[in-house]
Amino acid sequence: MKELKHMQGVLSPVVTPFKKDLAPDTERLVAHCRWLLSQNCGLAVFGTNSEANSLSGEERMGLLEALAAAGLDPARMMPGTGCSSLTETAKLTAHAVRLGVGGALMLPPFYYKGVSDEGLFRHYSEVIQRVGSERLRVYLYHIPQVTQVPISLGLIERLLKAYPKAVAGVKDSSGDWANTEAMLKAFPGWGVFSGNELVLLKNMQGGGVGCISATANVNPGPIHHLWANWKAPQAQGLQDSVNAIRQWVQTFPMIPALKAIVGHYGSDPAWRTVRPPLVELTPEQNTQLLQGLEARKFAMPGLRAA
Amino acid sequence: MKELKHMQGVLSPVVTPFKKDLAPDTERLVAHCRWLLSQNCGLAVFGTNSEANSLSGEERMGLLEALAAAGLDPARMMPGTGCSSLTETAKLTAHAVRLGVGGALMLPPFYYKGVSDEGLFRHYSEVIQRVGSERLRVYLYHIPQVTQVPISLGLIERLLKAYPKAVAGVKDSSGDWANTEAMLKAFPGWGVFSGNELVLLKNMQGGGVGCISATANVNPGPIHHLWANWKAPQAQGLQDSVNAIRQWVQTFPMIPALKAIVGHYGSDPAWRTVRPPLVELTPEQNTQLLQGLEARKFAMPGLRAA
Repeated sequence: MKELKHMQGVLSPVVTPFKKDLAPDTERLVAHCRWLLSQNCGLAVFGTNSEANSLSGEERMGLLEALAAAGLDPARMMPGTGCSSLTETAKLTAHAVRLGVGGALMLPPFYYKGVSDEGLFRHYSEVIQRVGSERLRVYLYHIPQVTQVPISLGLIERLLKAYPKAVAGVKDSSGDWANTEAMLKAFPGWGVFSGNELVLLKNMQGGGVGCISATANVNPGPIHHLWANWKAPQAQGLQDSVNAIRQWVQTFPMIPALKAIVGHYGSDPAWRTVRPPLVELTPEQNTQLLQGLEARKFAMPGLRAA
Repeated sequence: MKELKHMQGVLSPVVTPFKKDLAPDTERLVAHCRWLLSQNCGLAVFGTNSEANSLSGEERMGLLEALAAAGLDPARMMPGTGCSSLTETAKLTAHAVRLGVGGALMLPPFYYKGVSDEGLFRHYSEVIQRVGSERLRVYLYHIPQVTQVPISLGLIERLLKAYPKAVAGVKDSSGDWANTEAMLKAFPGWGVFSGNELVLLKNMQGGGVGCISATANVNPGPIHHLWANWKAPQAQGLQDSVNAIRQWVQTFPMIPALKAIVGHYGSDPAWRTVRPPLVELTPEQNTQLLQGLEARKFAMPGLRAA
């Protein structure tokens, strides 16, 4: 087996297409992932913006196998494997590691609230031990506004001490730059991904490794370009220009907005379908979203229907 | 098949025993359920206090089959089947209905926050249609302090209009009596369970059908006695006496406290094990809890080790 490389760069929590009967649409997912890779964007499939938590474990495993079977490089994949159940998390993670993924993005168990760092440590520890693989690379997923279960610096410190190799990094989706900064300072050289591209430049300047961002589903090329040129004099200009797109898109409900954009620019309206409890954009929102993108000269080069 | 009866009375979200390796302990669960039934307490297995959301779907289905195979009456069971995933919820619910359960206690999809009533309606609607059984009885599970996804009166109204037979009731675990009262007034004759016994008398007086309460795991007999005698002159005294136990127990972390009590009164310390992210009581908490119960002349008649 090849030497494991730590993941870095720009990854997208890949939106999951559904058929009319709400079954996952494997073909469209493979096509979108292929396009993302062509834009130098890694595949954080089964993230929050993938509606992963509206999928069953079987559906996730089936899709991951389909991506690998389609010839996409598992080393570029960081599937979300964190569930509220310990056993389900261990199962999905072990399955992903067997397929050779570069990392596993792991939510904390998110049903119970007010849980202690000791309980979270035991959870992650048990999962890592059950997976029991040298090739496991866990990326802790801090998104407290959704989970209500934060990943504290103290928890990270304990996990890194116990599993210095397996605990490879974090995705900080808190939207709180002070928190990302604290992580960068506390754990220099560690794999800190920002949860969006708005702070990508700052994250790289602080020693981070990249970003995992919803809007990388639609704007991967320019975000990667910023990542690749973060030391260049024009970096701030690149940052400003990806910000303009992000800031517009995030005024809409994110997941249906991303799907509307992929559907529109890929001339494939089937992409609009979301799984309950989400709902698609209204026709008015859809029109407004697309007009705003056009005004910002937005494009998705090379995208076409599956 | 027998005519379906609506569920009523006192149910317990049955605590789930684990072995040392954290696997569910079927034998101890069967024994505890048998004891609860002997105390006239129904089985809301896989509720919040059952650590259900720390179990995989397979584990839940296996345990439910074991309970049925042990000869316990499925009509007395109201398993929790609500997951954050649509497909998982439909699968667990269909499985439970096939086993003949009296009802299914259904959390809303609880990962995504700020979702609309329209999205929640679509979720429940899709699950009910996928299960597609005349025998399905859904009890909506309102526990916003944990899920952060409330079940609004407007949502209930829409669901009742669309599925008057399948949508059988609600468990209101909000701890907000004004909300329970509003449900009782808005939907007279409907199956409103309070989420604890502290308001059982008020709930019955207002037209409710019973309670589903964590502490029914340890104090089922007296709570049922209150339920059976809610119209009697001594009802307020019975209410006061179950309150004294509940108010003491709930000053401790609920799930580990319940397990400590079952373990102590059943002379079976193996019961103490919880699954991460929960942690068991400290020895000090344990001693304090048990001393307080003794001072309140607490007993669990007929309980013995599995």
